[in-house]
Amino acid sequence: MQRLQSALREKRLDGLLVTSLPNIHYLCGFTGSAAVLVVSPESCYFFTDGRYTQQAHEEVHGARIKVARKAAFQAAGEWLATAGQKRTPKKLGVEGEHLSLAEGARLRKVLGPAFRVQQASALIERQRMVKDREEIARLRQAALLGARLFDTALKAIRPGVSEAEVAAEMEYAARRAGAEAMAFETIIAAGERSALPHGRASTAAIPARGFVVCDFGVILAGYCSDMTRTVYVGHPSADERDTYEAVRVAQQAAIEAVRPGRSVDAVDRAARNVLKKKGLARYFTHSTGHGVGLEIHEAPRVASGQNEILQPGMVITIEPGVYLPGRGGVRIEDLVIVTEQGCEVLAPVRKELRTI
Amino acid sequence: MQRLQSALREKRLDGLLVTSLPNIHYLCGFTGSAAVLVVSPESCYFFTDGRYTQQAHEEVHGARIKVARKAAFQAAGEWLATAGQKRTPKKLGVEGEHLSLAEGARLRKVLGPAFRVQQASALIERQRMVKDREEIARLRQAALLGARLFDTALKAIRPGVSEAEVAAEMEYAARRAGAEAMAFETIIAAGERSALPHGRASTAAIPARGFVVCDFGVILAGYCSDMTRTVYVGHPSADERDTYEAVRVAQQAAIEAVRPGRSVDAVDRAARNVLKKKGLARYFTHSTGHGVGLEIHEAPRVASGQNEILQPGMVITIEPGVYLPGRGGVRIEDLVIVTEQGCEVLAPVRKELRTI
Repeated sequence: MQRLQSALREKRLDGLLVTSLPNIHYLCGFTGSAAVLVVSPESCYFFTDGRYTQQAHEEVHGARIKVARKAAFQAAGEWLATAGQKRTPKKLGVEGEHLSLAEGARLRKVLGPAFRVQQASALIERQRMVKDREEIARLRQAALLGARLFDTALKAIRPGVSEAEVAAEMEYAARRAGAEAMAFETIIAAGERSALPHGRASTAAIPARGFVVCDFGVILAGYCSDMTRTVYVGHPSADERDTYEAVRVAQQAAIEAVRPGRSVDAVDRAARNVLKKKGLARYFTHSTGHGVGLEIHEAPRVASGQNEILQPGMVITIEPGVYLPGRGGVRIEDLVIVTEQGCEVLAPVRKELRTI
Repeated sequence: MQRLQSALREKRLDGLLVTSLPNIHYLCGFTGSAAVLVVSPESCYFFTDGRYTQQAHEEVHGARIKVARKAAFQAAGEWLATAGQKRTPKKLGVEGEHLSLAEGARLRKVLGPAFRVQQASALIERQRMVKDREEIARLRQAALLGARLFDTALKAIRPGVSEAEVAAEMEYAARRAGAEAMAFETIIAAGERSALPHGRASTAAIPARGFVVCDFGVILAGYCSDMTRTVYVGHPSADERDTYEAVRVAQQAAIEAVRPGRSVDAVDRAARNVLKKKGLARYFTHSTGHGVGLEIHEAPRVASGQNEILQPGMVITIEPGVYLPGRGGVRIEDLVIVTEQGCEVLAPVRKELRTI
């Protein structure tokens, strides 16, 4: 909060309307689904509605709580326009990525001409990129719990079992181990479906032969994990082994490229170059990774053309993949933290091709 | 799609940029997480990125597919600005509730002065309010599957078991029964926590005595279910029985108020009036219900001051609740469809107070 308030002073903003729920969670601890923060260089007000009265008082710290009889967004706007008029912002920043055109129009109407509304982009997201000690501890716990689900998957995967059943076993294990929820829809993509980079577990049965991509993550104490392993059901051909091995080497090369001062673009290139040598680069159709924290996709994007520089405390995924339409796909993903010297895989799990 | 294209002609829009994923799902069947539609009165173009090439070709109907090497939003904007320049829109509608200020600014920059961008509000959402026969069949299947999870809850709830374990059993049963996912984070709120209207299942143990609010829903074939039952662990006091009974009667009154031509406000009032007579209205801190379909919260809101008129084919929740801080809460919720004569509860489950 203090860093944000300094940033507001620097940007000469009299206040910031925070509408992103993960940003609100980050700043004041609230985990509910309806809230708005109004932060000025000197104060912070938290708005929610009647459903969250008790939860707000239990969770929110560092902000004065206002429970409105209407939607939090409307209440915050009206409060700014009236009660707050003397003490509060004239130049109001809004989160351009987290405020819709319709909300923006309503806000301008409520505030009237005494306020200048301007987009303040990614102020909080940039802070969130570098995790503090407690966040790292939570991410590590989430990653360790998440990694254990791979054992559950290995037991559940066999020909004839549906992808959804495998996901069901993993999600059940996650819940019983204390996860609040899955971080995203579990991907179990078997056989030809493994060529779908986002093949959410379907009712399709696992075929007698082929890759099975397992991409899964949990939320624990608010923080996400993210991990992918690809296994093979039956006996892989030499070509299939080569494809797997290319992805494994590409992923390792990208992990080794992670260190402070390096650009995310260079990390992406490290993976892509390995696949290029094997003639597989054009089947690697997504970026190499992304930040993870309170959200499953955060800054920085680890992608070609991005110029973000890695700093100690950033937590990112490294997840190259190769997808051969009609044949199958392979993806291997770890969650790594940037350290002073390089990086550390948060929950190491072996990566040799496992067959079932 | 045809109804939307007629609406565009009526509003004299040359095109509409559809950025809401549920709206895209509704219009063309795509279920992935990155896409944009450009609809004109005569054509429809679907944009996605390389991760979804295969899935787009499997799922999308009624639109020409364009797979971009960049983000779908950027690609659609550039296509409009260049290749599309002669054939396509000059007056472009955007979904004001589903486009951020930042995206809006980027779009205007890409399109340049040859385009007039204007907010077209809830065009598709208004169509989605009234479900067609296939949608109703899917909602009914989802509701029936969802309702069966209450039996799982009844078996799992006992003193000392954590709320999260109860949720785990329900979610496991849902997955095994074919659900794609839960429709929202399962709420199991026991004892004092039952006074939290949004008490997501926590690691807290169910106490020896008190209400347990169970609010849960599944997604099946894309459509959501939503249901709440409140049970009592131990022996309720006379006061607690009265509170439960008041909510039950209020919920029944609201269900009986549902019929075509009635305003949603009147339905909300029917529930609120019952609670007012019992002196409990001020503990009913949320609205009576909401539409359900591809999303768990859709139009219409069944709330005080809303003037939407009910029409046959609308599917809404009826879910009054009473929350007594520090003591406990009760909510009862059914999913109902508005019929020609009145309404029908999609998955009837008895509502007398059950004790465990």
